[in-house]
Amino acid sequence: MSNIKQQDWAYLAGFLDADGSIYVRVKPNNSYRYGFQISPSVVFFQSSKEKEKMVEIQKIFEAGYLRERKDGITEWTVGDQKSIRFIMENTMPFLRLKKKQAQLMLDVLDKKSEVKTKEDFVGVVERIDEFKTLNYSKKRKNDKEKVLAKLKFNLNIELKKKNLLAP
Amino acid sequence: MSNIKQQDWAYLAGFLDADGSIYVRVKPNNSYRYGFQISPSVVFFQSSKEKEKMVEIQKIFEAGYLRERKDGITEWTVGDQKSIRFIMENTMPFLRLKKKQAQLMLDVLDKKSEVKTKEDFVGVVERIDEFKTLNYSKKRKNDKEKVLAKLKFNLNIELKKKNLLAP
Repeated sequence: MSNIKQQDWAYLAGFLDADGSIYVRVKPNNSYRYGFQISPSVVFFQSSKEKEKMVEIQKIFEAGYLRERKDGITEWTVGDQKSIRFIMENTMPFLRLKKKQAQLMLDVLDKKSEVKTKEDFVGVVERIDEFKTLNYSKKRKNDKEKVLAKLKFNLNIELKKKNLLAP
Repeated sequence: MSNIKQQDWAYLAGFLDADGSIYVRVKPNNSYRYGFQISPSVVFFQSSKEKEKMVEIQKIFEAGYLRERKDGITEWTVGDQKSIRFIMENTMPFLRLKKKQAQLMLDVLDKKSEVKTKEDFVGVVERIDEFKTLNYSKKRKNDKEKVLAKLKFNLNIELKKKNLLAP
């Protein structure tokens, strides 16, 4: 990945600003410590008619994978944190429309790696909720409430097991 | 416009590849010599929520104008030939998805400036029809046929005026 030129990063920033998406999903998943998986994504969309060219672009940046949707759109999705960080840091100087989302993504990845307590985890989710405003999301419902409700529920079960709560 | 950096051009190429459009319209218009106006466009689309940022980008390149559509999309349209040529030539080295369209646009502008006869004009329209394939246009009907029909119609009228055709 060391051969990527500044002009390639500027190109990718234009592509991302025009037609890309930067977001983090908070998915309920009991195999994770706090009952939720935090799943960051950087996605580029194009007509599947341009799939070959998208493969070429993806090869330059050696990140993520392409997925052809049934509706004629091909998505180039970058989901691993190392690649996301790499793309955010390098497109950052050139981004004009999605600079705030890129900065927020880096902040979330930093905070996520430092989580030690439930409170830390809720703090990360609180930051993630900021994407919904930046991305003009139609689903503006905050994930924080969902996470807090689940954490409270889990705590109740734990206390019940220890007979610390009235039945 | 001399302060534009190579990185700005690379950015614009990414933007154009992801979400822009390069095309030429052939509009019936009797005030033009051959009965048709040739109208080239380079257009960038974004949600009107990003209008301010689009104004900033447009200012860098000092070309075209912004138009807020009623459906929530803002179009940055470049229609004057000098600006189109400037943008095509400078984004060309960085384009990956729309390089053919950019080259075709430059060819059409060259040919258009050299039109001396009806045949030359039809030749330009023939090149313009190539955009429909490159742009996966749903309206694939060729303009050449339309132009030929009109030229023939005009010729008939001329001949009739000179009483050279049977009524």
